[in-house]
Amino acid sequence: MNSLSEKRVAIVGLGLMGGSLGLALHRAAACREVWGIDLDVQRVARAQARGAISWGATDLGQGLRRAELVVLATPVRTILELLPRLPEWLAPGAMVIDLGSTKRAIVEAMERLPGSLLAIGGHPLCGRELSGIEAAEANLFQGAPFVLTPLSRSTPEARGVAEELIAAIGSRPFYLDADTHDHLVAVTSHLPYLAACALVRVAESVGADGPWWELAAGGFRDATRVAAGDLTMMLDILATNADQVIPFIDRLEQELGKFRMALATDLPQLRARLEVAQLRRRSLS
Amino acid sequence: MNSLSEKRVAIVGLGLMGGSLGLALHRAAACREVWGIDLDVQRVARAQARGAISWGATDLGQGLRRAELVVLATPVRTILELLPRLPEWLAPGAMVIDLGSTKRAIVEAMERLPGSLLAIGGHPLCGRELSGIEAAEANLFQGAPFVLTPLSRSTPEARGVAEELIAAIGSRPFYLDADTHDHLVAVTSHLPYLAACALVRVAESVGADGPWWELAAGGFRDATRVAAGDLTMMLDILATNADQVIPFIDRLEQELGKFRMALATDLPQLRARLEVAQLRRRSLS
Repeated sequence: MNSLSEKRVAIVGLGLMGGSLGLALHRAAACREVWGIDLDVQRVARAQARGAISWGATDLGQGLRRAELVVLATPVRTILELLPRLPEWLAPGAMVIDLGSTKRAIVEAMERLPGSLLAIGGHPLCGRELSGIEAAEANLFQGAPFVLTPLSRSTPEARGVAEELIAAIGSRPFYLDADTHDHLVAVTSHLPYLAACALVRVAESVGADGPWWELAAGGFRDATRVAAGDLTMMLDILATNADQVIPFIDRLEQELGKFRMALATDLPQLRARLEVAQLRRRSLS
Repeated sequence: MNSLSEKRVAIVGLGLMGGSLGLALHRAAACREVWGIDLDVQRVARAQARGAISWGATDLGQGLRRAELVVLATPVRTILELLPRLPEWLAPGAMVIDLGSTKRAIVEAMERLPGSLLAIGGHPLCGRELSGIEAAEANLFQGAPFVLTPLSRSTPEARGVAEELIAAIGSRPFYLDADTHDHLVAVTSHLPYLAACALVRVAESVGADGPWWELAAGGFRDATRVAAGDLTMMLDILATNADQVIPFIDRLEQELGKFRMALATDLPQLRARLEVAQLRRRSLS
C-alpha cells in the first residue's frame, strides 16, 4: 500500500467541497495527480481552469479508471447511488472515502463493497453559505475537524491514507462511529438549518415587501445564514437522517413552548432558561 | 433651538451602546461636550479612559444638570424608570432621545413628559454579541439603520437634532411608528434570539461533556450567536414586547411542525417549503 503522495486521486462531484479539496490537495502537492468527475461538463472545465483538477471527465468509468483513491463529494443520496457502481472500475487495493454529511447509510453501503477495496467514511465539518465550484477555496478545510467513521473492515492502511489526506488539507481527524455522528450533527447542523428556514418563513409572513427586511440587522442575518445553503445537499441530508432529526424538532418545539409560557406568566423562570443558553453559548469560542 | 454642535450631550448608561455613541460623537466632533452617567463608578472611569465621555457622574441629578440633549442608553425597563425623573433636572428646551430596542412603552412614557421638553424615540439597529464599555467602538453605528419613532408631540426641531445625531455617527434615519417597529423587531430580532437560545438548550441536552460541542461548526455558531447577548437587555425587550413576540413563537412552532410532518411523509413538500426560505434568504444581502 503506497502513501497518498504516490496516488492518483479522483474526486467525484466538483461543487464547493470537491472543488475545494482539489485546490487544497494541489496546493499541498499531496498526491500524484488529482482528477475530477462531474456530470456537468462546464463544471469540469471550470474546475480545471481554477486549478482544482489536472484532468477531468463526465463519464464515471473513464474518470475512475486507474484511480487509486476515490473521493465521493456529491450530495449524500448520489453517493449512495455511486457506491455500488465503483467496483466495476476500481482495481483491487483502491480506496474509497466520501465527504457526505450523514454517515449511517453511506457506511452501510460501503460495507457491501468487495473486500479488495479499502473504504472509510468521512465528513469535513466546514462549509460556506455559497455553493458550487466558483465558491471553492483551498482554505475551506483549514483548522476544521474532519470526522472519520471507520467501518468494521477499515484497515489501518485505510485510516492512514485518510489521515494523510486530512493533514494535507489542514484539517484534524475526529473519529466517531456513524450512529453517534448522525445523532450529533442532527442537533448541531440539521436542526439549526430547519430553525433558520422556519425563521425566514415566519418573517416572510409579515409581508414580503414591507420594511422588515430593512430591519433585519446582523442578528437575523447570522441566525438565518444557513437557510441559504444548497437545497439538494440539505434535502439529501435530512432524508438520510430523518429518524434522528425528528425527535430534535420535537424538543425544539418543546423548548419554544416553555419560553412562550414563561414569557407570558413567569419572567424569572424565562431568565433562568435563557441564562443557561447564554452561558453555554459564551463558552463556545 | 441650537444645533447639535452647540449642545451638551449626556449619555445615561455606559454599556456597549452608550459607550459606542460617545466614541462616535467624539470622533465626529459632533457636539459641544459628551458627558456620561452610570450607576457603576468603574464604568464611568473606563468610559472616560477610553475617550467615550469627557466627564462623568454616578448621580443622575448631577450628571443631567445643564444637559441639553439626554440620550438614554440603558436597558428598556430602566429607560421606563428614568423618564419620569428627568423633568426634575432638565431645563425647558432640553431634548430626550433613547436607544431602547422596543418602542411602544417608551414612546408612551415620553408622551407624559412636560411640553417644555423635546422628545423622540430611537433604536439603532446594530449590536455585537459582546456587551459592556470594553466592547464599545466608534464604528458600531456605521451604515446601520437608526429607527426614529416620533411622538405626536415630536417637533421638527426634535427630528432635526435626531437626524443630525444619526448623521454624525454614520447611521441613516428610518422613520416608523412605534407599533410597527415593535411588530417587526419581534420577528427580526426577538424571535431569532429565542430560537437561538432554544437551539443551544436542545444541543446541551445531548450531553454537556460529549463531543457535540466539537462538532458545532460555523453553521451552529452563526445560528446561535445571538444567544450570547446581554441577558438583562434581552429580558427587558421581551418583557415589553411579549404581546408581539408570543404569536410569532406560535407561528415558528407551526412552521417547525409542518417541516416535521413533511420530513416524515412528503419530501417534495419539504423541498418546496425550504426553497421559499432559501430564495428569500439569498435575496438578503
